[in-house]
Amino acid sequence: MDRDSGEDAVRAGEVVLVGGGPGDPGLLTVAGLAAIKDADVIAADRLAPLAALAQARPDAEIIDVGKIPRGPAAEQRSIEALLIERAQQGLKVVRFKGGDNFVFGRGGEEWQACAAAGVPVRIIPGVTSAIAAPAAAGIPVTHRSLTQGFTVVTGHVRPDDPRSTVDWAALARTGTSLVIMMGMAHLPVITETLINNGLAADTPAAVIEDGTLSTMRIVRAPLADIAASTRAEGLGAPATIVIGAVAAFDPYADL
Amino acid sequence: MDRDSGEDAVRAGEVVLVGGGPGDPGLLTVAGLAAIKDADVIAADRLAPLAALAQARPDAEIIDVGKIPRGPAAEQRSIEALLIERAQQGLKVVRFKGGDNFVFGRGGEEWQACAAAGVPVRIIPGVTSAIAAPAAAGIPVTHRSLTQGFTVVTGHVRPDDPRSTVDWAALARTGTSLVIMMGMAHLPVITETLINNGLAADTPAAVIEDGTLSTMRIVRAPLADIAASTRAEGLGAPATIVIGAVAAFDPYADL
Repeated sequence: MDRDSGEDAVRAGEVVLVGGGPGDPGLLTVAGLAAIKDADVIAADRLAPLAALAQARPDAEIIDVGKIPRGPAAEQRSIEALLIERAQQGLKVVRFKGGDNFVFGRGGEEWQACAAAGVPVRIIPGVTSAIAAPAAAGIPVTHRSLTQGFTVVTGHVRPDDPRSTVDWAALARTGTSLVIMMGMAHLPVITETLINNGLAADTPAAVIEDGTLSTMRIVRAPLADIAASTRAEGLGAPATIVIGAVAAFDPYADL
Repeated sequence: MDRDSGEDAVRAGEVVLVGGGPGDPGLLTVAGLAAIKDADVIAADRLAPLAALAQARPDAEIIDVGKIPRGPAAEQRSIEALLIERAQQGLKVVRFKGGDNFVFGRGGEEWQACAAAGVPVRIIPGVTSAIAAPAAAGIPVTHRSLTQGFTVVTGHVRPDDPRSTVDWAALARTGTSLVIMMGMAHLPVITETLINNGLAADTPAAVIEDGTLSTMRIVRAPLADIAASTRAEGLGAPATIVIGAVAAFDPYADL
């Protein structure tokens, strides 16, 4: 992928899935920005770094897919139909998401839909909020003396919901940092489930709202108190929840 | 962080930890590239996207820290001493890593060392290979019908090594995709441990060598066979191992 070769960043009739990163437009990739600048059509999510759209072509069609007015399932099918339709018109199409399209971004589904329609797809990964939002709050998801890994799960269904395919009892014991996305609505039951399955009530936890943005807010508290603390501070979505020793990381601690 | 304001991307006396992404220079962030272009000193790892260094200033000091000739622990302390020394000379210092500095990148340790010396630190997250290498191989680490999360661990110590703080028995049961970095040397014992702890022997698995680069190679096999298959194909480090239903993802499967 030579960005200086004069080639088009997006080919006609192609759909490029661009991960926009966690919010700060500087955290968009060089290749992602080149695709935004070159696209005929950009289908953007509410959580994509919309400031980057200022660099789109003046004649580019910008579609705010957050405004497609139907239920969630129908909405996703409508987005896929739109990407396919524009690509089949021979246009250069970018699907622009916050974070990374393969981290709870439905990139796989859009790829399948395009493939079924014979439309070529290319992936430009993005910086995921799951790592960058904690980083912006001063929290490394891994740290040599604290943890040898991290787990990223969605909290959009309750741990006891039959639709959940995550084993939260096992999660409580992995020894990895836990990063929970879309989990604010269920934070009380999530923390209760982890504690009931053996994760210490005083395990450090943190919630980061608007990670990497100038509006970022951070609350740190022990696991048993984090739900009440974030409610007291009025934190809401979009937020990233971090649970584990790294959530108490402070490079200035011993100064 | 306004990149068009004419401000310096790196301040004098500051150390900026820049995540370089998985290898393709197009996957460096806009802010990361700006820091590379502005730096007086760039301390780069072997796995950083070195092609980006062509955009450094002609008078920038480029230090290949992979060549510091001492043992691993001493080497890390030498790198920290170097970052601090150059920053205290009032220079603009970039620490340039592959992937993200907080995903097995020792960014937290470098931050602590700089903080202890009174040197300011700034973080520019990067695209992690843990997500982008699978993506480049066509594997989404999350996919709505297959998994609601993923776990990233290092395999640089054996699961039965007393230095391991990961509970591999719990890992086998989380229901998340598993992504293992630096695990090629121990792949046979890792797969055996997971199977002995209840992960099905026919769970899909994949190994991606040089993910995102033109030299990328991919091997897919069931969990019980992946170690033998990668050995037969001669795959080696740096490689990303993916275990779980997503490892068999194929958007063209039903065509």
